[in-house]
Amino acid sequence: MTIQAHQTVNISLAERSYLIHIGGELIGNPEIFAGLPNGSTAVIVSNTTVAPLYAEKLKVALAGKYSKVLAMELPDGESYKHWETLNLIFDVLLQNTCDRKTVLFALGGGVVGDMTGFAAASYMRGVPFVQVPTTLLAQVDSSVGGKTGINHPLGKNMVGAFYQPQMVVCDLDALKSLPSREVSAGLAEVIKYGPIADMEFLSWIESHMESLVRLDTQALAHAVKRSCELKAWVVGQDERESGLRAILNFGHTFGHAIEAGLGYGEWLHGEAVGCGMVMAAHLSQRLGLVDIAFVERLTRIIASAGLPICGPSLDASDNAGRYLELMRHDKKSEAGEIRFVLIDGPGRAVMRAAPDALVREVIDVCCA
Amino acid sequence: MTIQAHQTVNISLAERSYLIHIGGELIGNPEIFAGLPNGSTAVIVSNTTVAPLYAEKLKVALAGKYSKVLAMELPDGESYKHWETLNLIFDVLLQNTCDRKTVLFALGGGVVGDMTGFAAASYMRGVPFVQVPTTLLAQVDSSVGGKTGINHPLGKNMVGAFYQPQMVVCDLDALKSLPSREVSAGLAEVIKYGPIADMEFLSWIESHMESLVRLDTQALAHAVKRSCELKAWVVGQDERESGLRAILNFGHTFGHAIEAGLGYGEWLHGEAVGCGMVMAAHLSQRLGLVDIAFVERLTRIIASAGLPICGPSLDASDNAGRYLELMRHDKKSEAGEIRFVLIDGPGRAVMRAAPDALVREVIDVCCA
Repeated sequence: MTIQAHQTVNISLAERSYLIHIGGELIGNPEIFAGLPNGSTAVIVSNTTVAPLYAEKLKVALAGKYSKVLAMELPDGESYKHWETLNLIFDVLLQNTCDRKTVLFALGGGVVGDMTGFAAASYMRGVPFVQVPTTLLAQVDSSVGGKTGINHPLGKNMVGAFYQPQMVVCDLDALKSLPSREVSAGLAEVIKYGPIADMEFLSWIESHMESLVRLDTQALAHAVKRSCELKAWVVGQDERESGLRAILNFGHTFGHAIEAGLGYGEWLHGEAVGCGMVMAAHLSQRLGLVDIAFVERLTRIIASAGLPICGPSLDASDNAGRYLELMRHDKKSEAGEIRFVLIDGPGRAVMRAAPDALVREVIDVCCA
Repeated sequence: MTIQAHQTVNISLAERSYLIHIGGELIGNPEIFAGLPNGSTAVIVSNTTVAPLYAEKLKVALAGKYSKVLAMELPDGESYKHWETLNLIFDVLLQNTCDRKTVLFALGGGVVGDMTGFAAASYMRGVPFVQVPTTLLAQVDSSVGGKTGINHPLGKNMVGAFYQPQMVVCDLDALKSLPSREVSAGLAEVIKYGPIADMEFLSWIESHMESLVRLDTQALAHAVKRSCELKAWVVGQDERESGLRAILNFGHTFGHAIEAGLGYGEWLHGEAVGCGMVMAAHLSQRLGLVDIAFVERLTRIIASAGLPICGPSLDASDNAGRYLELMRHDKKSEAGEIRFVLIDGPGRAVMRAAPDALVREVIDVCCA
């Protein structure tokens, strides 16, 4: 078997640098995995939806390199992203006497990637792992950059680690099996890179939305590659989110409130982020940072991806108050003050606080 | 209040470097903590035994620096070093809306330090923490070097992180409240540094054992300082245990089998390590690395610290087999082969495998 023409993006983090491979027919290709660290055992961690589609193919591709290749399935969904599920991974690793050179493979979407990554960060205080994202959202965002973790009843991703994979393998063919709702959710994170860092890319997205929604391979290849390049550029400057990296959370502060308020899994993460970007754009406009034409353009692009642009009601008596309460629990909050990622002119993001009254106005306007 | 004369040892790890403070009356002294990172909230994590003795004193010392100082108590004992207890820490942090600048203080022995350290490593993917060890074992070993973690039913410290504290505060006065069994357990880790790295220190320990056992402050100050210096020297060269650092586990492979075989908490960690060093010394002798006089001398020193030198029976029908089975789960094992830390001549350690038959002989000789 030969490697099909495919593209790579380098994440440059000194001795923790790694490559993202982007292309078709990658999961089943042994040559892609040839450069990984040696070890006796590989463990593929997937979920009940993805494993039946791709686990066997990956297992075969790894069989030449690792003398033992195990595969395990987690239950599927954001609502399982917690301690109990994480412990299922540790149980399998220990029952099989997996040592420090065991390599974990996260085969699935963001939930599988975040949990497998945190398991790899923590098992024996760290074993190598590889991201094999099978959703658009995971390919353009969550599998790149080393954020791993699990949810807590009081907040999303509250427990985790910064821990970089050895490699990310984005097989574009895997996207063909995605439900359209998940394609839209992934497009939210693609769109995100435009307003915060690259207005030219936003224009490209705007004019190729129709191709992206119908999963045209060439359009997808460009969207995934440019998203990864922009993420690599940001993460390379600020691996542990002490500053710049936080701009990647554009739309996420409002979005997390939606996810937490409705219960994780009710809206997809990307749906919440899409709607959260509309809210954050409105807040930027009310603070005088961008004009209303920019907000309307971004809202149109988000809607054209099939994403919600109206926030849900989280509390019939004081909806805005509930949003504010949930956002104060966000990781970017400091001493109870919410730090928003806002658009400081097209293509440029800024972190700042905002008066509660203004935030309330935005929530009232953006919620049906 | 002025700082009493006290000593410091530097752990040199580039931007993760920090100081160990060693001396009397340190816990209640605000000046010791003055250089820590700023933040609005400090959280003291202790246990039901230690908190009543020192939590209030530490709380007062921190009150000038942090506007909110919370204190929480975990249940006391190795048997609680698991997910459920760790989650108690996350619950408190989230219920109090603790942000990324919250500083955790581990006030207690190794269990409190390991769990608080892992909580700090994982909460919001990392917040600063300080070790305030109150047992001899924690002062000379577990609080220094950044190993954090929890146990799994199938193995000790199987889940955790390498995560360095901002500072370690070894208050020698805290040792006065220790039960003598815990003093002996701590001395096991002090003795350890001799055979692996510093025979002159071993001779000093040998001639000062009587003073150490009765907690003479001057003797303790030297024992803690020299132990920390030796650990600093090793950890500074190999933070993440890719090589040299493993020598600090002298006696631990056999010791972990004892702890796991009896159930964690039955023997103290230091007791298991003391007995494990006797076994590892015998194995070194049978491999021709040291002579029997060395083994007998080390055994005498271990016994004089009040530590067990005879291993427990873990299985009436095949005791050695049970030890071997448990040791294959050790983190240092590779592809099922047990890697022992052995003495390769006095003052020098080496990692190597050994034939099962020889290990069985040693276990038979060392178990009553």
